[in-house]
Amino acid sequence: MDDRPVLGLDADDTLWENEVHFRETERRFVELMAPWADGSTTEAALLDTERANVAITGYGVKGFILSMVETAISLSDGAIGAEPISRVLEWGRQMLEAPVALLPDVAETIGTLADAHRLLLITKGDLTDQRRKVDASGLADHFWRIEIVAEKDTPTYRDILGRHGIDATRFVMVGNSVPSDVLPVLEAGGRAIHIPHDLTWALETATDSDIDGHEFPVLRSFG
Amino acid sequence: MDDRPVLGLDADDTLWENEVHFRETERRFVELMAPWADGSTTEAALLDTERANVAITGYGVKGFILSMVETAISLSDGAIGAEPISRVLEWGRQMLEAPVALLPDVAETIGTLADAHRLLLITKGDLTDQRRKVDASGLADHFWRIEIVAEKDTPTYRDILGRHGIDATRFVMVGNSVPSDVLPVLEAGGRAIHIPHDLTWALETATDSDIDGHEFPVLRSFG
Repeated sequence: MDDRPVLGLDADDTLWENEVHFRETERRFVELMAPWADGSTTEAALLDTERANVAITGYGVKGFILSMVETAISLSDGAIGAEPISRVLEWGRQMLEAPVALLPDVAETIGTLADAHRLLLITKGDLTDQRRKVDASGLADHFWRIEIVAEKDTPTYRDILGRHGIDATRFVMVGNSVPSDVLPVLEAGGRAIHIPHDLTWALETATDSDIDGHEFPVLRSFG
Repeated sequence: MDDRPVLGLDADDTLWENEVHFRETERRFVELMAPWADGSTTEAALLDTERANVAITGYGVKGFILSMVETAISLSDGAIGAEPISRVLEWGRQMLEAPVALLPDVAETIGTLADAHRLLLITKGDLTDQRRKVDASGLADHFWRIEIVAEKDTPTYRDILGRHGIDATRFVMVGNSVPSDVLPVLEAGGRAIHIPHDLTWALETATDSDIDGHEFPVLRSFG
């Protein structure tokens, strides 16, 4: 029986670049909306739409595209034409087909980690796209198990630990998002290591009061 | 140890209505496109778009909405306005918030099935929406495990059986789709029971040559 400890790993912006594609698309979207709104207005409107939609659409590229189309129509007061909307759809397709770029030190480190641990990838987003990125990363063979989930909250982590027969006190999660990879794992009785990424989506950012009272190690990079 | 046999259950159009919501939305879409195309042209164009997109968007409502927007722009040659597109988005939201209607006999039968079997729900589509429907169905407590997957093919079934330690020869899958619920399960060494639904999406329909050489029981309803 394999009794190596289980190491949980986040995927997007922990193992490979992800948010950079959203930022680049958002930059184009701000340009597209320039006839109707300035950059900060567009950014704020898009974030409001995403926040309102995420409970029913979930995370990931498809919901992001739908939120951009919705925001474009509402910010332009219905004046935007079909051509700019089809450009938004095309950006979405590009995101769903973008190559996977591993973060520094990941390729060198993951084999060593996989020798000493059972690696459990835990990622949220669109099933098809998350699975595609795992395959394209070239890392799939290192993972013991892969969990693609709708939400990374405490009940989800408890469910994962239970289903895989993992003792929470021996479980460590590594990721770039404090609200998704750190706090709910601590709450579930595990430990967590935070590896910040330069780019973090506003809805994945913890406030000081969220973090207050919690202690966890912060690493500069994966290596 | 629980050694009751594992019974796999499909969800959409096996336990509850699903395709009916797609058909109703498609009917509205045909009306919306009437200025530019007749009904059969619109239906064929939408199916072509869905077929081209499904590999990158996966199954489910979000991909369906994106395919409708794309089809609307292309069929109207870019002449469609923002208002009709926002109506398409609104239909998507309605689908993502639609109440879950159990199919006949499901509510009465599932408890009996759950006494004698470990029930394993296996469904594909958008994670958030599939999970919402499980919760809204009121059936969640009857399931031993729930698998929401990107594709229901033979490797997926093999992976599921392996991860849950299920002996394929003791596994039976029940569902309305021959290509998704029956043929890949037989290929993986299990058995399958087909319960046809009046409404089946074109991409979930098996041809005679697909079925040729395979035998499986067909039941009229869940009861």
